Amino acid sequence: MEFSELIETSKVDHVLLSRPFLQPVKGTLCITSHHLLFASRAADKEELWLLIRNIDAIEKRFAGSSGIITIKCKDLSVMYLEIPGMEECLNIAKSIEALSSLEPTSHMYPFFYRPKQLNLQEGWDSFTPEEQFTKLSIHTDNWRLSYVNKDFAVCPTYPDAVIVHKSISDAALKTVANFRQGGRFPVFSYYHRKSGMVIMRSSQPLTGANGKRCKEDEHFLAAVLQPDKQGYIIDTRSTQAAHQAKVKGGGFESKTNYHKWKRLHRSIERGRVLQESLIKLVEACNDQSNSIDRWLNKLEASKWLSHVKTVLTTACLAAQCVEREGASVLIHGSEGRDITLQLTSLAQIILDPDCRTISGFQALIEREWLQAGHPFQLRCASSAYCHAKLKQEAPVFLIFLDCCWQMSYQFPCSFQFNEHFLITLFEHAYASCFGTFLCNNEKERFNLNVKEQTISIWARLNRPCERKLYVNPLYERNNLTIWPSVAPQSLQLWQGLFLRWNQSPEHQNEAWEQINHIMEHSRRKANPTSTELSVVKEDHARK
Amino acid sequence: MEFSELIETSKVDHVLLSRPFLQPVKGTLCITSHHLLFASRAADKEELWLLIRNIDAIEKRFAGSSGIITIKCKDLSVMYLEIPGMEECLNIAKSIEALSSLEPTSHMYPFFYRPKQLNLQEGWDSFTPEEQFTKLSIHTDNWRLSYVNKDFAVCPTYPDAVIVHKSISDAALKTVANFRQGGRFPVFSYYHRKSGMVIMRSSQPLTGANGKRCKEDEHFLAAVLQPDKQGYIIDTRSTQAAHQAKVKGGGFESKTNYHKWKRLHRSIERGRVLQESLIKLVEACNDQSNSIDRWLNKLEASKWLSHVKTVLTTACLAAQCVEREGASVLIHGSEGRDITLQLTSLAQIILDPDCRTISGFQALIEREWLQAGHPFQLRCASSAYCHAKLKQEAPVFLIFLDCCWQMSYQFPCSFQFNEHFLITLFEHAYASCFGTFLCNNEKERFNLNVKEQTISIWARLNRPCERKLYVNPLYERNNLTIWPSVAPQSLQLWQGLFLRWNQSPEHQNEAWEQINHIMEHSRRKANPTSTELSVVKEDHARK
Repeated sequence: MEFSELIETSKVDHVLLSRPFLQPVKGTLCITSHHLLFASRAADKEELWLLIRNIDAIEKRFAGSSGIITIKCKDLSVMYLEIPGMEECLNIAKSIEALSSLEPTSHMYPFFYRPKQLNLQEGWDSFTPEEQFTKLSIHTDNWRLSYVNKDFAVCPTYPDAVIVHKSISDAALKTVANFRQGGRFPVFSYYHRKSGMVIMRSSQPLTGANGKRCKEDEHFLAAVLQPDKQGYIIDTRSTQAAHQAKVKGGGFESKTNYHKWKRLHRSIERGRVLQESLIKLVEACNDQSNSIDRWLNKLEASKWLSHVKTVLTTACLAAQCVEREGASVLIHGSEGRDITLQLTSLAQIILDPDCRTISGFQALIEREWLQAGHPFQLRCASSAYCHAKLKQEAPVFLIFLDCCWQMSYQFPCSFQFNEHFLITLFEHAYASCFGTFLCNNEKERFNLNVKEQTISIWARLNRPCERKLYVNPLYERNNLTIWPSVAPQSLQLWQGLFLRWNQSPEHQNEAWEQINHIMEHSRRKANPTSTELSVVKEDHARK
Repeated sequence: MEFSELIETSKVDHVLLSRPFLQPVKGTLCITSHHLLFASRAADKEELWLLIRNIDAIEKRFAGSSGIITIKCKDLSVMYLEIPGMEECLNIAKSIEALSSLEPTSHMYPFFYRPKQLNLQEGWDSFTPEEQFTKLSIHTDNWRLSYVNKDFAVCPTYPDAVIVHKSISDAALKTVANFRQGGRFPVFSYYHRKSGMVIMRSSQPLTGANGKRCKEDEHFLAAVLQPDKQGYIIDTRSTQAAHQAKVKGGGFESKTNYHKWKRLHRSIERGRVLQESLIKLVEACNDQSNSIDRWLNKLEASKWLSHVKTVLTTACLAAQCVEREGASVLIHGSEGRDITLQLTSLAQIILDPDCRTISGFQALIEREWLQAGHPFQLRCASSAYCHAKLKQEAPVFLIFLDCCWQMSYQFPCSFQFNEHFLITLFEHAYASCFGTFLCNNEKERFNLNVKEQTISIWARLNRPCERKLYVNPLYERNNLTIWPSVAPQSLQLWQGLFLRWNQSPEHQNEAWEQINHIMEHSRRKANPTSTELSVVKEDHARK
């Protein structure tokens, strides 16, 4: 299939582009295989360069002989194109619709994106299981690196290398994999140096209605714990839901067969409920009515902050088990690819200061989301505007980012990155020129040669000129565990993400610019050249 | 009356003091005429030194042989005293109750407060009508300083000197005063240099049911406007309420008799409704339940943010009239001592960068609140906890401070002061060792010799060591008018004030401390001594 077949009209003149808080501009609209381009007639006016993949929904209406297309993006922005001529308008709309839902993955833009400054190799090997294992080995020799999943033969959603307890053989692992949904046997996730305890994750055991058992699974989990120690299994489903899962072949670890483990059930919403919550929240944020009551009502009705609170609270529980109870933790729900990953990654941010650095956070996203098999392509197929029937979409990763933001808001000096870093990750998870968030797991990425044929987002983000945009100027490493407050009064709407298109951009970044300016000033003053010193003095004289 | 008569028990040992987020401490409780003192046994533990006037409500209950007194303060903090012995407890409670509702004003603590570093004269003459008039005269000679109110003979709630239009004689002013409620004839409030327009304020005209007129009032208001100009009267009552006021002798400026003035009615809540809103808000903030829904419901039900929004929106309207319509504005409701002052002062903050400086804001508080006769003593007699029947209490000044905070939050670099400055003013308006916020108007202050016998808060706040606590390190003078967003999504709960006792103090000020630290560093580097330079270099080497 040629892209050009999908483009009914590739260029229209005299189009009016309107965006909130910006003057409308007239110009020429072009459609290419992957982008919507807009060039205004005034040479000094900015152009629009919109990745068509970023378009979540388009709506068209007609006013006289013109058509107006509303473009709603996955990054939550909204813009309007007024196109002269009804046929032109229909053609443009049809082309956008066809190009924005382009299949297969190998036709997506990351496979065509070739910027001069970045090369294909960079960034892909920055955070490997091998590297993680080397770091772990400094502190404990209880764990080993297993290649049992070579060629993704045992678990299609795990990477080829995983860290497992040294007491379990690869043969036994295969048996355990058969006993766990989707083959997701318990793997190592985090080692807490202070207590020597670990966090592991898996999917549910397939006990079924008849209480099937797996000796290897039981032995494996027993062996992880020291003789006198108890572990906690945090099951992300209510007790009732866990029991119901048995009917469908799933289940949970019974106290009888896993006597060293204490099960804690926490009911956390998933899937469609979360997606609907996001849709309602964004609808509330875009509500133009002028009433505080209505706004607070809609904010409440969206339940978004309740979901954030539940996830953050349960992550704190996991961290408490590890740090305060001195116990190891196994986390799973059903598949162990969504909420499980929210919890293991948030617990690490709470416990481990390394995860609050820019590169540590990247490593965390690699380990606990990408390599751990969070199905990004399914979950982030559409964001808050798409009218299509909800299937597999869910803002699981966005809720994780929101929880990170809540913590960075409560501990403004403990995170090396700022909220723009989190917002950038949100944007790229939903639509990107980079290959990092393509596909649903490492196997799919391997099959499509993603790591050979696309560029890694880390290559871009770690370029010095780019990286400095994401640095929190207030950062000062805090080696302590950070315990976020989860009181309702402490949780905030993430304005920087959800309201950024609804508020005038003019003063939004004013404070950060000023802080950065001060920092810059401060750095220059540390080693001033004679010219700079005179500038500094002038600065002070002027004040 | 001797204070000692009110003190039933002046000292109790073995008292346990508990406060949120602090370890309970055991020690000795003492009651003096004006303070509750608490000295712990461990010498290095902090003491409590609580102004009894700051106590809004106390509650007592008994547990075994001990009594527990809950102390709820006007600054919204709450603490608990566990006192051994029921009789001791009852005596303590009785003493606190008697001392905290102490009358008359001349017995209050400001008349006894004599710190070494501050003297009685300082601060009282910093912001006089004379000084204001001198500044005004640079730009226009249309106004004059009138002493018609010498000895507060014409209007008991105005200062002795007021700025009025030069076209009106003192004799005519006296006639106008008879036609305005409480004698509050229209006076000058603000001159906008850019447009040459003014903001004035007054009380309602006493037209009554029969439509009484006052030629002097009509002429005066006509003369203020240039021949071809229209003015706006912003009436802070609904049209209906303004009509109803006629029955009680009040009224409004009819179009027929004031044809150059266009009346705009804005219904703004006052009095008891506001006080109840504050009580509900604080109750919501203290709610210990763990549900986001309940919190957002209670926040909405309190209507606090709606009141803030209405006031801020109307202040923007006034500012728009002056800046965008190029029209002068007269603001009043009924008495013109509450909402009227909120609007005139907020409009000035929007329009005038001087009001956003520390000393300009102090001058604004002096002019538009203290000298303008806001009845601080009546309005701030109790805050959110007092069980007594509501009478004249209303958080009019607090809503004004909240609106200021909303603007400083939206324009983080445009205000020279930080939120601690606003919080400090809130605290001192409700309970203070300074005389500034005592009494309800200048006449009362004069009669009690407040300016001779108490210390001005400005004397304290303007001491360099104190002043630096209130400086916004991000401040950079912004000479533009600032237009705050009043979209519901843009208005925030003022956490720094309403939640400061409900959140762990540990990380609250972390960011500001870090910014101040950077600034300090930056200043030192501008002119480093050789020792400091080496420290700086070490600092960088360590990073």
